[in-house]
Amino acid sequence: MTVKITIDCMGGDHGPSVTVPAAVSFVRSHPDAELVLVGLEEPIRAQLKRAKVVDPREIAALPVVPASEVVQMDDPVEVALRKKKDSSMRVALNLVKDGSAQCCISAGNTGALMAVSRYVLKTLAGVERPALATVMPNRKGYSTVLDLGANVDCEPQHLLQFAEMGHALVAAVDGKERPTIGLLNIGEEVIKGNEVIKRAGELLRASTLNFYGNVEGDDIYKGTTDVIVCDGFVGNVALKTSEGLAQMLTAMIKEEFGRSWMTRLMAVLAWPVLARFKRRVDHRRYSGAALLGLRGVVIKCHGSADAYAFEWAIKRGYDAVKNGVQARLAKAMEENASPLAGTDALSSGASGGSVDPRIALATVSPKV
Amino acid sequence: MTVKITIDCMGGDHGPSVTVPAAVSFVRSHPDAELVLVGLEEPIRAQLKRAKVVDPREIAALPVVPASEVVQMDDPVEVALRKKKDSSMRVALNLVKDGSAQCCISAGNTGALMAVSRYVLKTLAGVERPALATVMPNRKGYSTVLDLGANVDCEPQHLLQFAEMGHALVAAVDGKERPTIGLLNIGEEVIKGNEVIKRAGELLRASTLNFYGNVEGDDIYKGTTDVIVCDGFVGNVALKTSEGLAQMLTAMIKEEFGRSWMTRLMAVLAWPVLARFKRRVDHRRYSGAALLGLRGVVIKCHGSADAYAFEWAIKRGYDAVKNGVQARLAKAMEENASPLAGTDALSSGASGGSVDPRIALATVSPKV
Repeated sequence: MTVKITIDCMGGDHGPSVTVPAAVSFVRSHPDAELVLVGLEEPIRAQLKRAKVVDPREIAALPVVPASEVVQMDDPVEVALRKKKDSSMRVALNLVKDGSAQCCISAGNTGALMAVSRYVLKTLAGVERPALATVMPNRKGYSTVLDLGANVDCEPQHLLQFAEMGHALVAAVDGKERPTIGLLNIGEEVIKGNEVIKRAGELLRASTLNFYGNVEGDDIYKGTTDVIVCDGFVGNVALKTSEGLAQMLTAMIKEEFGRSWMTRLMAVLAWPVLARFKRRVDHRRYSGAALLGLRGVVIKCHGSADAYAFEWAIKRGYDAVKNGVQARLAKAMEENASPLAGTDALSSGASGGSVDPRIALATVSPKV
Repeated sequence: MTVKITIDCMGGDHGPSVTVPAAVSFVRSHPDAELVLVGLEEPIRAQLKRAKVVDPREIAALPVVPASEVVQMDDPVEVALRKKKDSSMRVALNLVKDGSAQCCISAGNTGALMAVSRYVLKTLAGVERPALATVMPNRKGYSTVLDLGANVDCEPQHLLQFAEMGHALVAAVDGKERPTIGLLNIGEEVIKGNEVIKRAGELLRASTLNFYGNVEGDDIYKGTTDVIVCDGFVGNVALKTSEGLAQMLTAMIKEEFGRSWMTRLMAVLAWPVLARFKRRVDHRRYSGAALLGLRGVVIKCHGSADAYAFEWAIKRGYDAVKNGVQARLAKAMEENASPLAGTDALSSGASGGSVDPRIALATVSPKV
């Protein structure tokens, strides 16, 4: 089966100069992938030329679909939604909606992508608010964290829905029947937190979900639960703070090893280990967050992504399609649903496949 | 001048077995310090005996004031406030209130410490809600971050007050006349964030403070602004998430260097650099967060602190007193105040002194 994915080539800080080379590199290593390049034709073709796409198979695997408008990174949601009806983002999503493609990847403005995706694809039945979900590495493996910035003012029932979507996702892709759910709070005790959190805790305790209870910020990296639920404001701050700290620590290690000729010699001697560590913490390998709760697979890539990171985001979407994540998600939600959860079974890809589904929706850094 | 500090010996997960050895070690290296040990007499005396306190000067520098009750780490605020009137926490704070001591250090339950401090000491005029402030390291030095968990449901005017207190603190202790203030948000643009944050941004822009604008989680570690303001829920999650990530990365470095005899040899060769890095990121050296907005200096130490970390928290209090932080804070708030800020000039210590004031209120990990 060909995996057909639309690429919003104009999204992100760098547009086609990042998205097109990433797409070219991807089809060269994935013969069953077809990446539909959506956007302004001229810069896309220029980048294809630059990437020396002349082989007929490659040309066929990288069709160009023109779109005359571009959603800028600072465009208000209303502009993206109401004024730019021929934007690369919109056209790429339309192709998923009409079944021409199984997935859309965009590094565009998160607010706009969420709004346009929701408008074009619609939400799964029962889902009030889609959420941005990511997999964050921890000591034991990965945790799925949501929401990461799609919803800044949440009611308790929205947090319950995020838990249901997270449960469904992990149950589907990890094969864990009863993944544990943690509610991000400022203490383990039920009396902790603000009113929204306390009420969300009550709803979760009353639900059929495998609710572990409150977790704290450090539990994200301890791997205390399979799923961590929080509102988009808190989730976004946790994610960005993590990015900032990781960058500072990396810079400090460099500084310490660069202090003198002796420490530089030590760095050379320890290089194989340092390189391994660096590779493990390279956030670009976790690029690509999933918009959950929509009738289609949409992967959001960090706006500042380079081609390497964008290619990883394409890989997430590809793996999601190969593993039938959308079908599994809809099915699992139906099975595990509380009265609030969606019951639509919508398939956007074949089940099975050998790709590790645990990383299908991994990311470290969606730009919001 | 003798610096007189009360120690809530019963606070924290470990009580006198941590607090007393820390106090003993501290007076041994600080001849002008007098640490009043407050709590159950028997375990305190047992620890003093164990630490071989026999020198008359040391005995004089470590007077014991009995208190018959203990605020447990999981006691509700009401119990600490209404039932345990002879708790070590309460007695230690009373000694600050009546002028017998200049500062109180406690590793006890944060909610209880905040409530009892507020009840005993009262807030500075104009301060609606005291806040828990910390100094977090960044690439350029330090940023003062508040609130870290004292206030979970904040109104916009509370965030403005935190900014005013943070401004006053940094202006006072760092000698920066116009420290920059950042509002922790999920994007730089003014349209970002929830309603409380947007309104707080408006209040900050309209204030006389040197408001930089919105900052994101990674700006904490970039050092974008001198002060970072957030509600206690978000601040606590950012802090705990940072702790968790730092611990995970440290564990990963260990893992990579422990993989084989060859990597272990590399670790030995690189040891001087690794030890230096480890020391730089040791969060125990940043132990001790300040409760700002009270009529007295109160330092909260992490509940799980060991003696080394608790001694650093004592050092924070000692430095705060030596540098006349309370007087400077009250004075600076009066000078820089918006109509909301306090105007009480309350001195709790002499000005001047040679201790680096930038670390006077530093911490990484108050347990909430």
